[in-house]
Amino acid sequence: MSMQPPRIGGLPAGPRDAISDVAGVTVGHLTLAEGDVQTGVTVIRPHAQDPFRHKVPAAAAVINGFGKSVGLTQLAELGQLETPIALTNTFSVPAVAQAQIAQCVRANPETGRALPTVNPLVLECNDGYLNDIQRMAVTAAHYEAACACASADVAQGAVGAGRGMSSFQLKGGIGTASRRTGEGYTVGALVLANYGIQANLVWGGQPLGQRLAARQGAPAAATEKGSIIMLLATDAPLDARQLGRLALRAAAGLARTGSVYGHGSGDIAVAFSTAYTLPDLPDAPMPAVAMVHETRLDALFQAAADSVEQAIVHALWHAEPVMGRSGHHRQALRQLLNQ
Amino acid sequence: MSMQPPRIGGLPAGPRDAISDVAGVTVGHLTLAEGDVQTGVTVIRPHAQDPFRHKVPAAAAVINGFGKSVGLTQLAELGQLETPIALTNTFSVPAVAQAQIAQCVRANPETGRALPTVNPLVLECNDGYLNDIQRMAVTAAHYEAACACASADVAQGAVGAGRGMSSFQLKGGIGTASRRTGEGYTVGALVLANYGIQANLVWGGQPLGQRLAARQGAPAAATEKGSIIMLLATDAPLDARQLGRLALRAAAGLARTGSVYGHGSGDIAVAFSTAYTLPDLPDAPMPAVAMVHETRLDALFQAAADSVEQAIVHALWHAEPVMGRSGHHRQALRQLLNQ
Amino acid sequence: MSMQPPRIGGLPAGPRDAISDVAGVTVGHLTLAEGDVQTGVTVIRPHAQDPFRHKVPAAAAVINGFGKSVGLTQLAELGQLETPIALTNTFSVPAVAQAQIAQCVRANPETGRALPTVNPLVLECNDGYLNDIQRMAVTAAHYEAACACASADVAQGAVGAGRGMSSFQLKGGIGTASRRTGEGYTVGALVLANYGIQANLVWGGQPLGQRLAARQGAPAAATEKGSIIMLLATDAPLDARQLGRLALRAAAGLARTGSVYGHGSGDIAVAFSTAYTLPDLPDAPMPAVAMVHETRLDALFQAAADSVEQAIVHALWHAEPVMGRSGHHRQALRQLLNQ
Amino acid sequence: MSMQPPRIGGLPAGPRDAISDVAGVTVGHLTLAEGDVQTGVTVIRPHAQDPFRHKVPAAAAVINGFGKSVGLTQLAELGQLETPIALTNTFSVPAVAQAQIAQCVRANPETGRALPTVNPLVLECNDGYLNDIQRMAVTAAHYEAACACASADVAQGAVGAGRGMSSFQLKGGIGTASRRTGEGYTVGALVLANYGIQANLVWGGQPLGQRLAARQGAPAAATEKGSIIMLLATDAPLDARQLGRLALRAAAGLARTGSVYGHGSGDIAVAFSTAYTLPDLPDAPMPAVAMVHETRLDALFQAAADSVEQAIVHALWHAEPVMGRSGHHRQALRQLLNQ
Repeated sequence: MSMQPPRIGGLPAGPRDAISDVAGVTVGHLTLAEGDVQTGVTVIRPHAQDPFRHKVPAAAAVINGFGKSVGLTQLAELGQLETPIALTNTFSVPAVAQAQIAQCVRANPETGRALPTVNPLVLECNDGYLNDIQRMAVTAAHYEAACACASADVAQGAVGAGRGMSSFQLKGGIGTASRRTGEGYTVGALVLANYGIQANLVWGGQPLGQRLAARQGAPAAATEKGSIIMLLATDAPLDARQLGRLALRAAAGLARTGSVYGHGSGDIAVAFSTAYTLPDLPDAPMPAVAMVHETRLDALFQAAADSVEQAIVHALWHAEPVMGRSGHHRQALRQLLNQ
Repeated sequence: MSMQPPRIGGLPAGPRDAISDVAGVTVGHLTLAEGDVQTGVTVIRPHAQDPFRHKVPAAAAVINGFGKSVGLTQLAELGQLETPIALTNTFSVPAVAQAQIAQCVRANPETGRALPTVNPLVLECNDGYLNDIQRMAVTAAHYEAACACASADVAQGAVGAGRGMSSFQLKGGIGTASRRTGEGYTVGALVLANYGIQANLVWGGQPLGQRLAARQGAPAAATEKGSIIMLLATDAPLDARQLGRLALRAAAGLARTGSVYGHGSGDIAVAFSTAYTLPDLPDAPMPAVAMVHETRLDALFQAAADSVEQAIVHALWHAEPVMGRSGHHRQALRQLLNQ
Repeated sequence: MSMQPPRIGGLPAGPRDAISDVAGVTVGHLTLAEGDVQTGVTVIRPHAQDPFRHKVPAAAAVINGFGKSVGLTQLAELGQLETPIALTNTFSVPAVAQAQIAQCVRANPETGRALPTVNPLVLECNDGYLNDIQRMAVTAAHYEAACACASADVAQGAVGAGRGMSSFQLKGGIGTASRRTGEGYTVGALVLANYGIQANLVWGGQPLGQRLAARQGAPAAATEKGSIIMLLATDAPLDARQLGRLALRAAAGLARTGSVYGHGSGDIAVAFSTAYTLPDLPDAPMPAVAMVHETRLDALFQAAADSVEQAIVHALWHAEPVMGRSGHHRQALRQLLNQ
Repeated sequence: MSMQPPRIGGLPAGPRDAISDVAGVTVGHLTLAEGDVQTGVTVIRPHAQDPFRHKVPAAAAVINGFGKSVGLTQLAELGQLETPIALTNTFSVPAVAQAQIAQCVRANPETGRALPTVNPLVLECNDGYLNDIQRMAVTAAHYEAACACASADVAQGAVGAGRGMSSFQLKGGIGTASRRTGEGYTVGALVLANYGIQANLVWGGQPLGQRLAARQGAPAAATEKGSIIMLLATDAPLDARQLGRLALRAAAGLARTGSVYGHGSGDIAVAFSTAYTLPDLPDAPMPAVAMVHETRLDALFQAAADSVEQAIVHALWHAEPVMGRSGHHRQALRQLLNQ
């Protein structure tokens, strides 16, 4: 086998091939890995400031809405992030949302009083195969720890929210990547991969899933009950409408890996721009921003689709095997590639 | 003043003039009223069975999405309720969502394992003027207590989730109403009213807000920072697309009371039908239902708008004055009407 | 009766109380009124230049989509107008759309070749009661004539596309109005009113429909089969997302007149801003615009709802009685008010 | 080279590998091919009856809305087809829409009078490279001829609306395919392919575009200015919401061929079911239909994605070379494969 994962598309990656190639973006993980508890939380911070005061233009694309994310309703209306983005398991969404509220209240004591309430943004997949999701093991302290350790070095694989995730009946988890356009913009992707039927896996354009099935016999027929969360960051100046267009291109990267957006899969993308922020207080001056001309979006769209596919490849490539709840076990893809 | 609240529209009400006129629908409140804690939780049960196993066709209309409700993404995709509907204050949404998950897990121990995860549905308004919202006083036990006491007798005003809500700078809260169509269908509404600028209040078609302002001087200029949640139940056989159309008609009832769907207001409607349920397991037979012919929806639309406006009237009419956080106080509208 | 129509809301109108109070906006009508042909076309030009080269930020709100408008799909994606807005009868939409294409090709001969294709924007109501809609009487020459005569003086009532329209079983048609906010922005509305059940008519807050019904006996029970198109212009710098929020507030103004957005009614609003334009060619510099702070939108929302309601009042007030197809006749509201 | 096009996916095709494998669906083409006029119209009839009287459940997915289709607004609201689906070039949409109105009026003389107006449904791509689109050569008679010759034998390639279309800088056009699920349902696809950058072409999973570029030097850098219309028919009983989910899966099939849904591409899917029809008159009984259980949709989703990709393959495979406007010429893919 190759010692490198396949490289997607013709655009160059940034120096880290990570979402943190978009300047200012940092990622933190808190991983819980003990016995039946194989889960965690991952935080993506768009910048180093308080996002409640310095809101970030953003938009989501719900490709398949079998998902329990919180925060998408207000995001669709206002086109703004006002917290870090948090990823976790499905049943820990409430705990993390509550932690985001508490974090905002600490930083802005009038939240929900003289100031408006804050909109938590927590996205999720169900890691219930490897993790005892019913234990709701993630706490506010875990969220805060993930925030505190956020950096431009992004660990991948079975870490943070990715700890217990499965993909293509193999070990899934966190992956990241980036691409640069000819105009000098960077698009970075980070995925939480927990989806896919193994026989359908396409790996850098190759029908790897079919080969694995031929070799070992297919795993018991499966339906796509997982999910994938796909985050896109860019330094290109885009407004929320344009970011919604960008977010949708995650669907193209996802499809190339063999997904048809299964009924039971929460396939959700969120895109944000770091090119400017929006003040929370009405008397602060609004930024005067020249957005990217609409006809120049194509390179960004290509970068979005390619970086999402690359991030999925990275998630599978970096995932180590994990044994969890009730002795359930997921192999790493690299184990199979080495056979 | 009149001893009766104004009556909206020409359609007859059901016997209770309440959402429980739709057979099987019950409502439970748990109220917290002590010092700075003036809040609660309200639960609307579409039927007496477990909604995770007997899912209910439903849809939402987001009229203004400045809101932190959870569950709307999956509702939009699948067109189904699978929990009771819960109402509470903004910062207690996570606790109630977690309680809904726990409730489903107790009833269906394989939830999130062999069975899919469950989609909590919690809608909210910010009662931070009267209630110390930062205390996050609502617990899972409160949610369960509200479920346990659900009945067809629906208390209105400053109860349950409505305990701390303000509307038109007066005491707001829970209101309910119903209307019947000529074809024998019932539409019931239940609102959690926490919105409105007093000078704009229209009361049964009368510009009451202007009269109050003329009499007492306007309250300090206010912006609409509240919200209103509007629930609609019907026994008419409608599919999720039709229920989405029905839900949008809440916007007409709301507008008649003086709202222009303020920027800071989470104005969200959810409509469901009790005419049939959908089994959770794929091998159970699907119901063969003849839906209402599309051109016969107009009477239901009228009933939806009228019952929402009537429910808002009832919320204000039944609200008693409340003193809460930091000595904040909201008068009852009836106090003003009596002056 | 009063010699003036009722005045809606507390905000001041602009000098014309018309959509043309938004500087640069002009309106042209071409009216066909002969025997069974009682119809026309109305054109709203956002500025004096070619909108294909100087695109205008815009968005639509589909309140009830029983309508045959063309152009809304691309408007939703790109947030831009690139033609004047045209109004006409349902069956003349194709002729007017074709005229818009031809107009753009004349001005830009490479349209659809080296340049992209153009997106016609034609909105419609069904004037088939008074007009022989099956005759498809409107031609390209009529559209061009309406463009050529566009001015800031806006005729109202049974003119242009409004010639054959009915509203509340009375004569409807074109109405316009404007409102100014405290921050000095203007919002202008223009409606094509062809909707409403007479018994439900609310006239400046008064239940006029009920009074008319009591006096004369209700007209034969009717369903709302008409439509209303509601256009909003503003000089406030808003992006397309914000304009979509503004457009939705037309629903509040419409509801106050007695509509519940009937099943068979195409209730569609389009809002645009004249504060900046977007160049068609990718090498032209994009404007650097500071948008209105989101929390300052409320005054614009109020102005939108009020100006739409006022424009509806004006449409009914200015409509003269019309006799048309097969001897069908619509009274003017003012005739009834004078009785 | 292979004498057969690549076969997509693991599901079996129907006997024709065409959309007409869904019983009752027929397709007709009218082709114009003379000098600078290289265009046409294609009609898809869901059944043999008048669709205005026997409406067909349907929904659309707008993947990228740079498109001038007509009819999608009402389709989204009502979830029904009421005309055949027509495909043509961008500037001929008005003529074909007008022809659909006229056709309905002939069959139902009270259309737009005692009966509601009819909602034309015309989808389009821009064939302006090979066809003199500004000539607007398609007439009502052409539409009627295409309807009249509709049959279950579906010609593919440079026929009908596909006559002048380009795809991947090669000749594109009409393609069709079908897939059957294990439960015995059929999904059929028909595409009008006019999109794609050659270097990105993926052909049955192979990076053919890169190979062509390596061999011949890339064509001048191109942006994706075309479009693709993707129609899906099924005999599975689905409601409009479910059909919307099905339609979206066209995006997965499209992405696999190398598209990232370019900015300038109108990528639109429409799905309909033939399992039941809906009567136009309110007094006719509504059908009582048991829809497919939501968790059983996955096989249909797979069939939708696979049949769309297969239909695109067929469009390129069957396209013959065409010389058109100003001597412009498009090679057939098979010419390149044979070199």
